[in-house]
Amino acid sequence: MEVASNRIATVIGLGSMGWGAALSLLRAGFSVKGVDIRPTVLEAFRAEGGQAFATPAEAGSSDVVFVFVVNSYQANQVLFGETGALSTASPGTVFLLCVTMAPSATLDIAQKLEAAGMRVIDAPVSGGHVKALSGEITVMGSGADDAFEAAQDALDAVSAKVFRLGSDIGLGSKVKMINQLLAGVHIAAAAEALTLAAKVGLDLQTVYDVIKVSAGSSWMFENRGPHIVDGDYTPRSAVDIFVKDLGIVTGEAKQNGGETPLSATALSLFSQASAAGLGREDDAAVAKILARMSGVTLPGME
Amino acid sequence: MEVASNRIATVIGLGSMGWGAALSLLRAGFSVKGVDIRPTVLEAFRAEGGQAFATPAEAGSSDVVFVFVVNSYQANQVLFGETGALSTASPGTVFLLCVTMAPSATLDIAQKLEAAGMRVIDAPVSGGHVKALSGEITVMGSGADDAFEAAQDALDAVSAKVFRLGSDIGLGSKVKMINQLLAGVHIAAAAEALTLAAKVGLDLQTVYDVIKVSAGSSWMFENRGPHIVDGDYTPRSAVDIFVKDLGIVTGEAKQNGGETPLSATALSLFSQASAAGLGREDDAAVAKILARMSGVTLPGME
Repeated sequence: MEVASNRIATVIGLGSMGWGAALSLLRAGFSVKGVDIRPTVLEAFRAEGGQAFATPAEAGSSDVVFVFVVNSYQANQVLFGETGALSTASPGTVFLLCVTMAPSATLDIAQKLEAAGMRVIDAPVSGGHVKALSGEITVMGSGADDAFEAAQDALDAVSAKVFRLGSDIGLGSKVKMINQLLAGVHIAAAAEALTLAAKVGLDLQTVYDVIKVSAGSSWMFENRGPHIVDGDYTPRSAVDIFVKDLGIVTGEAKQNGGETPLSATALSLFSQASAAGLGREDDAAVAKILARMSGVTLPGME
Repeated sequence: MEVASNRIATVIGLGSMGWGAALSLLRAGFSVKGVDIRPTVLEAFRAEGGQAFATPAEAGSSDVVFVFVVNSYQANQVLFGETGALSTASPGTVFLLCVTMAPSATLDIAQKLEAAGMRVIDAPVSGGHVKALSGEITVMGSGADDAFEAAQDALDAVSAKVFRLGSDIGLGSKVKMINQLLAGVHIAAAAEALTLAAKVGLDLQTVYDVIKVSAGSSWMFENRGPHIVDGDYTPRSAVDIFVKDLGIVTGEAKQNGGETPLSATALSLFSQASAAGLGREDDAAVAKILARMSGVTLPGME
C-alpha cells in the first residue's frame, strides 16, 4: 500500500525494536522523527534519512506516535513529562503504546492520553530485533476501530501481522504478558536443560541439534540455545528485560489471585543473574547462574 | 528399502508408542511378535496380522527386540524375569531399549544383556502416538556400530530420523532426559500461561492463536494448548509419565550435583495432579491443579 505524502510518524525510543520500526517507516515513505536520549543514536538515525530529536516535545506534532521505551516509568516520562509528547501533540494523534507494561499501567496511560483528546492503541509487539528491521514484527493490538484505521499505514509499515484483540485497552498488554510468561520460562528452561546436559557430559551442539527437532523444542530454545552453545552473550535482549517482564507476570498474578510458580522460579533465576552483574548481557546468560550453582563451566565462562 | 524375508521383530509393550512401532514393522514386511499383558490388546494385534503373546518368553527368539514398557522396573521384569525375553533369546539378538529411563538404569540393563551375549541399542524415542503409527518417530540412539547395522531395517521401519549419538550406552538416555526436562516444563508452562490468561479474563482460543505464532510458543504449547482450550483431557500422554520423567531429571541432577529448579517446580505440579487423582488423564490436566489454586474454572472443569 502506498503511503500518502506528508504522513508523519514519531518513534520515541530508538532501541532494539524502535530502531527497526523507525527504519521500516522511513522505507514505507513516512517522514520519521526519531527521539532518543543518546546523541550517537540520533546521529545514526539522521544518516539513515530521519529527523532526530533529544526530546518528544522538540519533535512536535505527528500523525502517529510509536512509544518504544523500556518500561511504564519511561513511558509516563516521555508522554507526560515536562518535555513529553503531550506538550506539543495535536488532538486526534494516534499513540501506539508498544512498551511491555502491566495491563493496569497501560490502561492508566491510555486514560490520560484520551482525556487530552488523543487516540490510543495498546500495541505491544513480538518478534525481536531482526524482524523489527525488516518491518515484520507481530502486534498484539487492542483499541478503537478509528484509531486502527488512522494508524493502518503505519502498522502495515512495521508489522507482518496485527492481531486485533478487541476495543478495550489492556487486552493487548494482557496477551503480551502471557507471551512473556512463556518466553521467560522457556529461556530459563533452555538454560537449565543445556546446563544439566553439560553437567552429565553431553556435547551441547549435539543436544541442541536433537532437541530442536523434538518435542522439547520451543521458539526460545531454538533462538537462544545457540547463544549458550556458542558462549555468545552479546545482548540481543537483556536479562533485565525479563526481570521486568516476569515481575509484571508475577505481580499481576498476585493482584488477581493467580498462581504462577514457574514464572516465580524463572524470575528468581533472572534476578540472581542481574544481581551477579549480568543484567545487561543477553537473557540467555541466566545459564551462567545455573552453571555456577551446578559447578559446571559452559562455553564462554571463565 | 526392502526387508529381507524371514526377519523377525518382537515388540514388548503394545502401548501408545509400541503399538505404532509394531504396526510399522508389520507394514515393512517383518514377522512381528507382539507382547502385552492385556488380552484385548493381543486380540487387536492378531487382527492386524501380528502374532501375539502374553509373555516375552513365549514369543521366543527374534532378530530384534523392541522394549516399549513404561519404566525401568518393568524393563527389568520383561527382560530378566522368570518369563522374560532373555530366557528364550538367541545370542546376538539386538535389544532396542526404547523406554525413558534414568541413564544409570539403562546402563545397568545393557550390561546384563551384553553379559548374556546380546547386543544393545540405547534407543529412547520422541514423537508421540501419531508419529509412531506412521513409522515416523525420532530415535535418540547410542550403541555399537554392529548393533545399529543389524537393526537398520527395523529402525528404518519405525522412524523418520535416527540420531547416532555415539557408541556409549547411556548417551541416548541422557539426551532423552534433557528432552523430557524441556517437554515437562513446557507443558506446565503452557498450563500456567493459559490458566493466568483465564484468570485475567482473556479468551483462551485467542491467546492460543496469538502465542502459537509468537516468541512464547513451544512444541508442547502448540500440541497441548488445544487440550486446555477445549477442556479435552483424553490421555494422549498421561500426567504420571511426567511424574516419572521429571523424577528422573531431578534425581539424576541431584546425583550429579546439577541444579534444576524449574524441573522441580514442574514436577511438584505434576505430582499434585497425580495425587489429586488426575494421574491417568492427559498431561495437560496439570492445568486443573493451577486452576484450582487460582480459583478459576477452565473449560472441561466443573
